[in-house]
Amino acid sequence: MCKTEMEKEDDLLDQLWKSRSLAMERIRGNRQHIILVASLIDRIPNLAGLARTCEVFKTQGLAVADAKIVQDKQFQLISVTAEKWVPVIEVPVNSVKQFLEKKKREGFSILGLEQTANSVPLDQYIYPKKTVLVLGREKEGIPVDIIHVLDACIEIPQLGVVRSLNVHVSGAIALWEYTRQQRL
Amino acid sequence: MCKTEMEKEDDLLDQLWKSRSLAMERIRGNRQHIILVASLIDRIPNLAGLARTCEVFKTQGLAVADAKIVQDKQFQLISVTAEKWVPVIEVPVNSVKQFLEKKKREGFSILGLEQTANSVPLDQYIYPKKTVLVLGREKEGIPVDIIHVLDACIEIPQLGVVRSLNVHVSGAIALWEYTRQQRL
Repeated sequence: MCKTEMEKEDDLLDQLWKSRSLAMERIRGNRQHIILVASLIDRIPNLAGLARTCEVFKTQGLAVADAKIVQDKQFQLISVTAEKWVPVIEVPVNSVKQFLEKKKREGFSILGLEQTANSVPLDQYIYPKKTVLVLGREKEGIPVDIIHVLDACIEIPQLGVVRSLNVHVSGAIALWEYTRQQRL
Repeated sequence: MCKTEMEKEDDLLDQLWKSRSLAMERIRGNRQHIILVASLIDRIPNLAGLARTCEVFKTQGLAVADAKIVQDKQFQLISVTAEKWVPVIEVPVNSVKQFLEKKKREGFSILGLEQTANSVPLDQYIYPKKTVLVLGREKEGIPVDIIHVLDACIEIPQLGVVRSLNVHVSGAIALWEYTRQQRL
């Protein structure tokens, strides 16, 4: 029996839809095995900037304290739609510890980006493939109870007098270094 | 002849002044041989952020189109006094080409951070010790007449769908990579 024109159009639409879904899956997939935890960060420009940078380096996910942040106008202006591509995970501040412990059980190494007496300089550190990287609060850094859960702390060697990189910039450098090592 | 109390105090002040000047020279000196050219960048948060990052990595200088920018309130809020330490050089947009040609004669390699068909991925590039790195405009990148002066273009490999890092973040990653290589 011959298909009607309408049936043919339906088939075509169906094919188009399937190929679009496949293309989207390809785009969304193939992500690097690094998760950035930004739940301790308050400032929207930093969070939105990190979402953009996470998408550029195809991180597996970005954890934020409140997932509603992606609906914020200022966030969307800075993130330039990145939040549509990078998986945003809601991890409220009081659940960060449990989240990290869960990820540890799943085989991830839990790192903190923080200047401490025992921090390893970024250029001397070899990232495990499965990594969760915790960023600290803009001023106070990573609180002690979370420091205790970490497998290691890494730091960016800072040479100058003003010893503080912006948290978005630090996170971006740490992500680049992970990416560089994975590409080797 | 015995010195008066006042003369003794003068001597002490003189000594203090000299040791302070020496300390300042030490702090200001020992800079890396990389100059960042940000003359094409318009947005104050990007310029101030770059000043802070340049200071953290002790770049030899930061070129901006208008040196008065460092007196701007928003600039000072973001740069957290970095501009007091990193030498800021005024290079107006219409003088960038001459500045780059002068630096080339002084033995610097002139690089652009730009995605072009011939750009070398950042992780495959070995920086010359004496480097001038040109950043592009926020939207349009590096104009053609300046591209012609460059010895090479480098680019940060971007994996995601949203193919644009913020210019401050890109510059910071490129500076980190230079620093990493110099520390090897």
